[in-house]
Amino acid sequence: MTQQKISQKGITSGPFHSSKKIYEKGSIFDIEVAHRCIELSDTKTSEGEIIKNPPITVYDTSGPYTDPDYKVDLEKGLPKLRKKWIEERDDIEKLPHLSSEYGRERLKDEALNHLRFDHVNHTPLKAKTGKCVSQYYYACQGHITPEMEYVAIRENQQLKEVKEKYRLHQGETFGANIPEKEITPEFVRDEIAAGRAILPANINHPEAEPMIIGRNFLVKINANIGNSPTTSSIEEEVEKAVWAVRWGADTIMDLSTGNNIHETREWIIRNSPVPVGTVPLYQALEKVGGEVEKLSWEIYRDTLIEQAEQGVDYFTIHAGLLMRHIPTTIKRVTGIVSRGGAIMAKWMLHHHKENFLYTHYDDICDILAAYDVGVSLGDGLRPGSIADANDRAQFGELEVLGELNRRARAKYVQTIIEGPGHVPMQAIKENMERQLKHCDEAPFYTLGPLTTDVSPGYDHITSAIGGAMIAWQGTAMLCYVTPKEHLGLPDKHDVKTGVITYKLAAHAADIAKGFPGAQLRDYAMSKARFEFRWKDQFALALDSETAMKFHDTTLPDEGYKSS
Amino acid sequence: MTQQKISQKGITSGPFHSSKKIYEKGSIFDIEVAHRCIELSDTKTSEGEIIKNPPITVYDTSGPYTDPDYKVDLEKGLPKLRKKWIEERDDIEKLPHLSSEYGRERLKDEALNHLRFDHVNHTPLKAKTGKCVSQYYYACQGHITPEMEYVAIRENQQLKEVKEKYRLHQGETFGANIPEKEITPEFVRDEIAAGRAILPANINHPEAEPMIIGRNFLVKINANIGNSPTTSSIEEEVEKAVWAVRWGADTIMDLSTGNNIHETREWIIRNSPVPVGTVPLYQALEKVGGEVEKLSWEIYRDTLIEQAEQGVDYFTIHAGLLMRHIPTTIKRVTGIVSRGGAIMAKWMLHHHKENFLYTHYDDICDILAAYDVGVSLGDGLRPGSIADANDRAQFGELEVLGELNRRARAKYVQTIIEGPGHVPMQAIKENMERQLKHCDEAPFYTLGPLTTDVSPGYDHITSAIGGAMIAWQGTAMLCYVTPKEHLGLPDKHDVKTGVITYKLAAHAADIAKGFPGAQLRDYAMSKARFEFRWKDQFALALDSETAMKFHDTTLPDEGYKSS
Repeated sequence: MTQQKISQKGITSGPFHSSKKIYEKGSIFDIEVAHRCIELSDTKTSEGEIIKNPPITVYDTSGPYTDPDYKVDLEKGLPKLRKKWIEERDDIEKLPHLSSEYGRERLKDEALNHLRFDHVNHTPLKAKTGKCVSQYYYACQGHITPEMEYVAIRENQQLKEVKEKYRLHQGETFGANIPEKEITPEFVRDEIAAGRAILPANINHPEAEPMIIGRNFLVKINANIGNSPTTSSIEEEVEKAVWAVRWGADTIMDLSTGNNIHETREWIIRNSPVPVGTVPLYQALEKVGGEVEKLSWEIYRDTLIEQAEQGVDYFTIHAGLLMRHIPTTIKRVTGIVSRGGAIMAKWMLHHHKENFLYTHYDDICDILAAYDVGVSLGDGLRPGSIADANDRAQFGELEVLGELNRRARAKYVQTIIEGPGHVPMQAIKENMERQLKHCDEAPFYTLGPLTTDVSPGYDHITSAIGGAMIAWQGTAMLCYVTPKEHLGLPDKHDVKTGVITYKLAAHAADIAKGFPGAQLRDYAMSKARFEFRWKDQFALALDSETAMKFHDTTLPDEGYKSS
Repeated sequence: MTQQKISQKGITSGPFHSSKKIYEKGSIFDIEVAHRCIELSDTKTSEGEIIKNPPITVYDTSGPYTDPDYKVDLEKGLPKLRKKWIEERDDIEKLPHLSSEYGRERLKDEALNHLRFDHVNHTPLKAKTGKCVSQYYYACQGHITPEMEYVAIRENQQLKEVKEKYRLHQGETFGANIPEKEITPEFVRDEIAAGRAILPANINHPEAEPMIIGRNFLVKINANIGNSPTTSSIEEEVEKAVWAVRWGADTIMDLSTGNNIHETREWIIRNSPVPVGTVPLYQALEKVGGEVEKLSWEIYRDTLIEQAEQGVDYFTIHAGLLMRHIPTTIKRVTGIVSRGGAIMAKWMLHHHKENFLYTHYDDICDILAAYDVGVSLGDGLRPGSIADANDRAQFGELEVLGELNRRARAKYVQTIIEGPGHVPMQAIKENMERQLKHCDEAPFYTLGPLTTDVSPGYDHITSAIGGAMIAWQGTAMLCYVTPKEHLGLPDKHDVKTGVITYKLAAHAADIAKGFPGAQLRDYAMSKARFEFRWKDQFALALDSETAMKFHDTTLPDEGYKSS
């Protein structure tokens, strides 16, 4: 490599405040699970006694970027953590070349050399004919994979090491099956086999650290990133991804609609320690110059394969919005606000044909199964206003999503179900209950919901209220909302605000459902607070930097921090 | 007046975005109730048809400051809206001079002339001997006061004028008695008479616009302001009050602990269009040089009278924390975090005597009744951490607050009950249920609650989650939390962030409990959003300025705003 294609100066890395990266070994497999270990100072009692405060281990989404022993090199990409695990299963083959036409075209195009990731895998992996490679399939066969052991260890956050006693509140689980003490690999397997959890793990994204999405696990959050025709360089987009996972994003969705989507995505995936989701329809639409009527199954199919071979871990697919639903949206205040939903409705109205994502759904599932790409069934009819919440359109589509979930399971595709949107507080529970009923407990993945329509500029908060509630009730993953929602595109500061806001909402839900150990960090924080151990409070904060900055503003004296 | 004592340059005034101040006349009394009327632009249909969008009337806490016809003059104070109403009841007398020693001393002290409000009322009002002047008393007698009609009109927000039809969600009330269509003066009276609502209205604060706090009315929010020994001039404090009510504070609490508390408070009350609350214990402690053991009933009593005659509308009084509760706090993670609670615990431990606020409680009520000062029964044992929520200490005190509520009612003192604090989501409902049970449905007034301990810098959000939930379940007023909670003193920006955050939480609760008309603003916003009427979206936003600023950042073109 003679010249750097990407500036790495703007990439945020380095350890967290008072924390070190630790690696816990597996007992079934030869794996090392990364945690963040927050080190605390001693308690000095009024009698002068010194009491050690044990370190607190917390879930860490940040990947190698926060390991001081790791040298970040975006040009190389992250280490391929899962490579060996995937290869050893002996159910995959190396393809001779990229299977998608578009992928091959882009690879050939020398004009793109200057922005291409150097180590594009020209021979992506795919399931051998007749083999199934999804974590769901393995689980159904009774197998525990290294990925499953990894997430079990990860979710436990070394709780076994905790000796401290503190007052625990009993959780209220709304019928969930939260383990009492420990997450075992067997439990992980059984939850995946039941379709109640997914472990997004495209065989072409070996860089991702395994994580699990399900109501009986820690609540996860997703951060949307992505360029638009008017903004962002590749560097900025990679930094947004690294930045989002640093603050706590469990997955990222790349919703790019600008130039060089394909190349940008390659950089993001190769450097992302968390699963990456996309909405392939957006890129397919770019390929037809934004003219909805020109969309076709062929173009969409090629896009699915293109992205699957790059390593996208889950696709949002708006296959549940059917011709018959469109009339039910006519009297809505805000019509169809989902971009994917609006695109497919327009396509159907133009062609007078059923949604091709629905008519080709089994073909889609076959493609996804071959790479272990999960499907996130998009709610094209999610309500865009309080008035439209829980209406016939929304719930009509939800029932179809239930059908599609069953069809995906038949092909061993891992499935999650997307949910609203704008919903007033008293109408949230019905969403959760119907989703559980119609979708056989497949993980629910909601956008908020926003509990009012009147606070643009503060919709991260309006939606965190609904998000915390629905996550408590059983939603497995929350899609973040930033302060710019309804107003513009989020910048880095907005991404961070959105992530931290959702992190706290998810944490509130983890405590409320009684997830083992969820209260520990709160306990440690409160003890530090009571003892005026300021530095420990900063270290334990979801956002140490902001806590420190706010504290410094009014009480700048160094003495205040350790006293 | 030869020289201005206070700079008025820094006082924020002027109308809201696209809004005018309107005044609605009473039908029983000769009163004029202020509303904010948001004017909307027309809808242009795709067929070119022009359809008028009727204006939206919303609740307005901002007082005359947003009336362009009103000339702000802090030196004079606000117009005495209620003066005539109070006088006409003929149950009050003008005292010959201030009754509190401290008040008289300060008035005599010429060194204070430069910072004294010019028109201090030397002859404050008090109930005639044998008379009772509280709104609660009037309501119990079956009387409707002008104040009661004012709040009925105010809460209705001109809902009768609304002709538009939109899909309404049914509320879930948890046993509350929300009117179906309209708030009548009779309903207001009956709710006050039942002790389920209070109308804070000190006869010495005639400037305040009447408002009501009760679970069957709109959820209210309080903003804490106040100087500290190291910060703020009088001007800054008055501006903080004006600023807080501009953004939506329904009451303000002046928690000053710095210099010249007495004089600062005078300026604030004379210029506050909303009820003002205080914690008299804080000032009493200042009077004894901060030495808790020197606190006495005599000093406290004089402080109550001093503040009652200035016009404070409600006092937080920590009378429920008793000797027997102290041992129950020993094993807590965060002990006693309420400042008032900590002061009284220290006093009791030093003197080995029962809390003097409890032993003198009937005397306190007699003083309060004579001016119609409400009592907000402080929860000195509110939990300061998730671990301490809903413990024996907290609920033990709550039962005493129930007893004190009944004793206050016997003397016709209006009462509200303060609540937590830090409470995990699953434990919130028990707080509301126990409060309703032990306190005979007296209005509940909570600080959040915060649903996690781990997000310093974001505690306005952590607490808005709990606040929205508990307000939905029946809490009448939420005390705001700012981003600086646990870290430092809020500046103006923090005050605004706290107020808007709580406004949206309160609004989410109003919608959830099905308060008549609560969904209208959301409907209008969503319709404007669907029609790309940007200026209307800004006008309808809880914070127009931030919405506009965020929008401008990414889409600065003027054309985007009206298209």
